[in-house]
Amino acid sequence: MEFFFEPEGIAVIGASATPGKIGHEILRSIASSGYRGGIFPVNPRVEEIAGFRTYPSITEIEDRVDLAVMVIPASKLVDIMVQSREKGVKGVVIISGGFKEMGEEGAALEREAVRIAREGGMRIIGPNCIGIFNGIAGIDTFFQPREAMIRPRGGNIAFMTQSGTYGAALLEWIAAEGLGVSKFVSYGNKSDVDEIDLLDYLADDDETRVIAIYLEGLEDGRSFLDALDRVLPKKPVVILKAGRSEKGAAAAKSHTGSMAGNFAVFEGVMTQRGVILVDDLEEMFDAVKILSLQPIPNRGHIAIVTNGVGPCVVAADELDRHRFLDMPDLPAPTVERLKEELPGFMVVRNPLDLTGSARAEHYRTGIDALIGPDFDIILPFFVFQDSPLHDSIGDLIGYFSEMKTNSTVVASAAGGPFTDQQTRELQETGIPVIPSARRLIKALGRIMRYSHIHRSG
Amino acid sequence: MEFFFEPEGIAVIGASATPGKIGHEILRSIASSGYRGGIFPVNPRVEEIAGFRTYPSITEIEDRVDLAVMVIPASKLVDIMVQSREKGVKGVVIISGGFKEMGEEGAALEREAVRIAREGGMRIIGPNCIGIFNGIAGIDTFFQPREAMIRPRGGNIAFMTQSGTYGAALLEWIAAEGLGVSKFVSYGNKSDVDEIDLLDYLADDDETRVIAIYLEGLEDGRSFLDALDRVLPKKPVVILKAGRSEKGAAAAKSHTGSMAGNFAVFEGVMTQRGVILVDDLEEMFDAVKILSLQPIPNRGHIAIVTNGVGPCVVAADELDRHRFLDMPDLPAPTVERLKEELPGFMVVRNPLDLTGSARAEHYRTGIDALIGPDFDIILPFFVFQDSPLHDSIGDLIGYFSEMKTNSTVVASAAGGPFTDQQTRELQETGIPVIPSARRLIKALGRIMRYSHIHRSG
Repeated sequence: MEFFFEPEGIAVIGASATPGKIGHEILRSIASSGYRGGIFPVNPRVEEIAGFRTYPSITEIEDRVDLAVMVIPASKLVDIMVQSREKGVKGVVIISGGFKEMGEEGAALEREAVRIAREGGMRIIGPNCIGIFNGIAGIDTFFQPREAMIRPRGGNIAFMTQSGTYGAALLEWIAAEGLGVSKFVSYGNKSDVDEIDLLDYLADDDETRVIAIYLEGLEDGRSFLDALDRVLPKKPVVILKAGRSEKGAAAAKSHTGSMAGNFAVFEGVMTQRGVILVDDLEEMFDAVKILSLQPIPNRGHIAIVTNGVGPCVVAADELDRHRFLDMPDLPAPTVERLKEELPGFMVVRNPLDLTGSARAEHYRTGIDALIGPDFDIILPFFVFQDSPLHDSIGDLIGYFSEMKTNSTVVASAAGGPFTDQQTRELQETGIPVIPSARRLIKALGRIMRYSHIHRSG
Repeated sequence: MEFFFEPEGIAVIGASATPGKIGHEILRSIASSGYRGGIFPVNPRVEEIAGFRTYPSITEIEDRVDLAVMVIPASKLVDIMVQSREKGVKGVVIISGGFKEMGEEGAALEREAVRIAREGGMRIIGPNCIGIFNGIAGIDTFFQPREAMIRPRGGNIAFMTQSGTYGAALLEWIAAEGLGVSKFVSYGNKSDVDEIDLLDYLADDDETRVIAIYLEGLEDGRSFLDALDRVLPKKPVVILKAGRSEKGAAAAKSHTGSMAGNFAVFEGVMTQRGVILVDDLEEMFDAVKILSLQPIPNRGHIAIVTNGVGPCVVAADELDRHRFLDMPDLPAPTVERLKEELPGFMVVRNPLDLTGSARAEHYRTGIDALIGPDFDIILPFFVFQDSPLHDSIGDLIGYFSEMKTNSTVVASAAGGPFTDQQTRELQETGIPVIPSARRLIKALGRIMRYSHIHRSG
């Protein structure tokens, strides 16, 4: 798989001289991704595109080409595959649609392309996808221009997806919140490379700490489970499975040609294995964000500290639905210490209510007293709108940036532009912030299930 | 209740000369809210605060004072209530905490304050709250300064909440997305004015189109149901009920002194009545946003039109869980028309897949063909990152701003800064945009249940 993520030489077959066209934008993305190898547009009708010399066909390129990115009509696929095999290409990314998702004729073309690839020792990603992104090595095959879609930096999150739309959205959320991506693959119809290949590759990829998958259908459920059993002891896997209902399955079939299968069975098998199963992209992002930034907790004992109780009530309600989470009462020595160290009107219990008068030093006092063997998850909730807190915000950020603990720390805050700004600064210290208290607890509950099976178990 | 929302004269008892203090910030909020009546800070120790002459006590104010906002120690409440009664105050807002949520002693003080109020024909909001906001008349008792908490414009959303934290967050979301508020009340411990008073008032308030409530406990369930039965035929009510679990109820009790009651019973009774019951603040915002901007659908027949199918698969799955929603196949004449008018590679079904090549004119063609008696809900989903769409974004916004239809139109799009910008522009045309397809469908499913009982039924 390395030739996909760290290729020597990339050809763009179907490169276009017209800005806005897919074959043009992909070339621009590769050119501005930081990739340092050779870039070779293939187009028989023009001599140069965006400063790069073009080639009439891939076989005319003299240099080594590991990766061919294809933006071509379905009818030309077989010829181009044959030429790519001749050139010695190792990896092919087919961006174009018009194959299996359109019916049997397209499916036959895909099968023929795979047959040619197998003969030449090549692998195919796609068709009907947005391709590959490697935040660390600088590979970027997206036809979405950077002004319309920001790219994340290099990091520890891997994401594979049948939906380019969800791919683009999640990558932008990751980028906007300062998180980073190790490997991203949009594989659309997955004619060849599928989640099994990628799971095996990512299991041993040192740069990847958490793997996320958006899935519509599985061709070979047994092999998928085997691959999961190899990767899960090493790192957590977050899955969003769509096509659960009859209408959803029909939409999936016309989207990526996938057969969706029975969701209840899927859900049972996944949950039993400790896969972190989520219901939409936001829940996927929540789980991935925590796993990217924080240690996996192993007991699930939560302490909340706050300057506004409403969201804690909602959090407590959600917590009740998760078997491996609880919010124990504060131990007597902690109560004594906090009653001594905090003003009398603050409410010493769990959640610890510092009230709207809380300043940074009260959070410090509260959290310092809570950190330790009793609680392995500390949740600071913030109303950044309240003056005493925002007047001491510098101290608060300073405290979190110097914080040393083995506990899992996740924060929550919701509001407008000012809160968003504080949230970004806080998250830069490595503390994930999730605006919804309920979503935060839900993500932790699912992570604890993984932990119970693969860490503490 | 008018004296709360359109008072003649406001006293701030406990006004402070020190910026950052609650009694100072509230005065600043009122002064910068656009309120045109008299503003009277009460503070015996200074002569002037922020340009306003102060008074040693409320009884020394010569002008009429309808509303007294109090930031005072619990021990002084009774005296100040007596003075306010003497002055002829009609409405009292007690911001300070330290009452029922702290135990029986505080509860007794609240009861005494209410007794004094009853004698003088006064009403009390609070204690332990952030007070009132009237986006239309310019009333604003918040101690959160504007630089840390943006305020919404006047509009048609009413929100009452026991949690000031949720109040601040929802108001900021409403403001940030350009929606507007008619009346907002944070009533905390609700010693006197409660949801029953407010429901009755808002039922006949012409400015209010949708009522949202964050609720921890109910003192008088029967009267609450009666009030709901009066308001629901006139306008929808969205409720977030917290304190559902044992831990949640305990947190609620120490928050607002509320007894939470049995949630399963509450849920059954509410759902049966067509109350739009939600599980967190984001879901509340989704429902409120649709109800604020769009007509209530009456059949629940959905058509989706998109340039990226992944989120439609998730939407179809969610849709399957809602009894009063469906996504029927396109009628034959619509199919014929769309096959004639759209390029051959676009997939004519429901969801209508315009593919990544879609431009504004394809959305126009698609939606024009879908509008009509077959579908009363049209959902345009967008991948704004794709170049053909963002290259024609001006036309797209133009189309929606001129659109005339009785259908309910709700859009979805997710991404980074560019998508956020397009989303804001689209929403300014009156089309609500919800980033998560699943949340969008969930909100519609709940709204259709209301519609089934109160509109089509």
